Amino acid sequence: MRMYDLITKKKLGEELSPREIAFMVEGYTKGDIPDYQMSAMCMAICFRGMTHRETADLTQYMAQSGAQVDLSPLGELTVDKHSTGGVGDKTTLVAEPMAAACGLTVAKMSGRGLGFTGGTIDKLESIPGFRTDLSQQEFFDVVKEAGIAVVGQSADLAPADKKMYALRDVTATVDSIPLIASSIMSKKLAAGAKVIELDVKCGSGAFMQDREQAELLAKTMVEIGSRNGRNTSAWITNMDQPLGLAIGNALEVNEAIETLQGGGPEDLKELCVCLCAGALSTAKNMPLDVAREKTLQVLADGSALQKFRRMVAAQGGDLEWVDHPEKRQQAAVCLEAKAPASGWIAHMDTAAVGIASMLTGAGRETKESTIDPLAGILLCKKTGAYAEAGETIAKVYAADETKAQAGVEKLLAAITWSDNQPEHIPLILGHITAEN
Amino acid sequence: MRMYDLITKKKLGEELSPREIAFMVEGYTKGDIPDYQMSAMCMAICFRGMTHRETADLTQYMAQSGAQVDLSPLGELTVDKHSTGGVGDKTTLVAEPMAAACGLTVAKMSGRGLGFTGGTIDKLESIPGFRTDLSQQEFFDVVKEAGIAVVGQSADLAPADKKMYALRDVTATVDSIPLIASSIMSKKLAAGAKVIELDVKCGSGAFMQDREQAELLAKTMVEIGSRNGRNTSAWITNMDQPLGLAIGNALEVNEAIETLQGGGPEDLKELCVCLCAGALSTAKNMPLDVAREKTLQVLADGSALQKFRRMVAAQGGDLEWVDHPEKRQQAAVCLEAKAPASGWIAHMDTAAVGIASMLTGAGRETKESTIDPLAGILLCKKTGAYAEAGETIAKVYAADETKAQAGVEKLLAAITWSDNQPEHIPLILGHITAEN
Repeated sequence: MRMYDLITKKKLGEELSPREIAFMVEGYTKGDIPDYQMSAMCMAICFRGMTHRETADLTQYMAQSGAQVDLSPLGELTVDKHSTGGVGDKTTLVAEPMAAACGLTVAKMSGRGLGFTGGTIDKLESIPGFRTDLSQQEFFDVVKEAGIAVVGQSADLAPADKKMYALRDVTATVDSIPLIASSIMSKKLAAGAKVIELDVKCGSGAFMQDREQAELLAKTMVEIGSRNGRNTSAWITNMDQPLGLAIGNALEVNEAIETLQGGGPEDLKELCVCLCAGALSTAKNMPLDVAREKTLQVLADGSALQKFRRMVAAQGGDLEWVDHPEKRQQAAVCLEAKAPASGWIAHMDTAAVGIASMLTGAGRETKESTIDPLAGILLCKKTGAYAEAGETIAKVYAADETKAQAGVEKLLAAITWSDNQPEHIPLILGHITAEN
Repeated sequence: MRMYDLITKKKLGEELSPREIAFMVEGYTKGDIPDYQMSAMCMAICFRGMTHRETADLTQYMAQSGAQVDLSPLGELTVDKHSTGGVGDKTTLVAEPMAAACGLTVAKMSGRGLGFTGGTIDKLESIPGFRTDLSQQEFFDVVKEAGIAVVGQSADLAPADKKMYALRDVTATVDSIPLIASSIMSKKLAAGAKVIELDVKCGSGAFMQDREQAELLAKTMVEIGSRNGRNTSAWITNMDQPLGLAIGNALEVNEAIETLQGGGPEDLKELCVCLCAGALSTAKNMPLDVAREKTLQVLADGSALQKFRRMVAAQGGDLEWVDHPEKRQQAAVCLEAKAPASGWIAHMDTAAVGIASMLTGAGRETKESTIDPLAGILLCKKTGAYAEAGETIAKVYAADETKAQAGVEKLLAAITWSDNQPEHIPLILGHITAEN
């Protein structure tokens, strides 16, 4: 078999066989297939696409290219959640304790933030003492004890994806649905959960700016999961403004705790309920409305909050910090961003809001940057809200005045104002299961 | 400027600016742009194509990537000829002396055979004493004295093309009209002739098997030449059977001499007259039919033959060999290929006939193979001819019985027989000038 012939086949729009895809992934991972052939292949895939079968095979072989976590000792109801990323997205911190309280087993490996905001691991580490670097044994022990653990992702999951992604990133071949889907799902397959719940975002703060593309990506990922024996479903959600009000690590954990306590912003609560209900419905083959009832119940009776607290305690985190927000350390500086004139917020460039939060110190500008857990933005107004001239629309937290000021300026520049009340944009745009 | 952005642009189907193309060609030649980016670009070009303007710029910068021959001391009527390759194509040996006899200046750099048959340089070297490795000064001196010289191509013409072609060859990105056209024309531009006459072949023995593609390639090359200040025109010709009857180096030189003497096969003569007339018409802005009359005249009055003889003498070749075929050394073995049954030759797989000739020793199996100048095939019948069972259809020459036998077998396998007389296929399919 020759990579040359496989490139030709894909270029002509033909389907690659499972054996051919295995040859390609293994050869590229080992270094037998050079970068210049793989980049030509990726470009051909950008133009020709891949069938669901090809994409599922590609993902499988990418998942098999490195370590694969065996979660079977934890039972059949292990659940993982993935979001395609957004600004202010702290759903893991809420939806996963809900899922644990509903009887699912949450053994989640999560990443640090790669873009302008912190990742789940960064957020959890703003809880004093919280350890995310558990050994496999410790990880399993916490899951068995608390029903939920969230740890840092082991570096050697799906090395084929790591290598391919680095190549795509420099050859303008990132924006291909089968390549994006296989990249995400290869790590999910390798991470071992039986149930995979996806949140595919679209809008100005998301990788997929277009709804149709987001739907196609969701369908492709659900297909990949199903064809690889995982119960997979996906929500299409709007990321045309930040999720919730808090952006920044400790600020987001605080908002997550408030939500688990029965408060919190409505949009965050609604999305977390959907994600938990979707996972539960898929895992237990339960009607979605029944799963939703069950989810609302574990939120109302406080059992979801208890799961969160048990996880924090089991992973070494400080429960005093969790339970007593008034005792927490605050950022040194807090500036207010004020409305330049009276009017409605017509649009928030969500990516730009993310950058504003990064400028305060809440995200990484380069891989080497350290995150300031206390920095970030607390929105008081979001899209659709009216503000009088000079009214505070956000509080911006940082370690010094310069950073806070940079955040304020970037945030204000991200907002489009209108004299008329804008139309309401729904948060939940669609639900994709293996059946539909 | 970043190569990444140029790949994105081309991927989206946008036009690259002259500056962008210069950046890409220079960067790749110097090694600043890695192979994996260039291969992604080539694949995007395969899908998106290039405008004539882009292709002309690409070719120009490829030509400028290495040495450029300045033929201006030889006047304004320097002419070069290029054929996209075929089996039995000895047109340079006939059409170029004709052109010189018509008053054009032939200062031609030619290649060795890369495929299964020898190139013009290999053919000329079957004349005892003939030198193709002239210094630039010697080359110019011969042109000034004889009006024609044909020498080996200097290695450093268009190094960008050499590097890009090697990459395309392993990334399945060869078959793109703008990339093929720029590859051919970059060397022609660097070789310096003011007049470029092209012969684009299509059919079973040609790179372009399809007539429409051949026409598109011809048009693209004529555009490239015109946009770079060269008088360029092209013929589309049929290569669905070998050209003439002789395939193999000395055999082909012999056939060329016979043609210059007023004999030779009709198809060879006709194509050479077209090529010379086309060049003359383009060079002197002369109606094609007038140029054709002039060409036939230099053939009839022997002045084309005299140009050939003067070139041979000036490049050290043996005129006795040229003038006295009966004194020439013959191949050790000659076997006859005989018709297996009575019938018409319906089709000759021309590429397979080329391989048959290679098996006799007339071509190179690998770059390191040496060519046997005496080996080859002399056809007695071509497509459309009738043969009785057992009648000789070709003589196969080689240094030993094994090679000759291999040639006979391969040749016979390349022929399709029919009980009915096949339709006649015209040799000349079209003529492309800058005007049409």
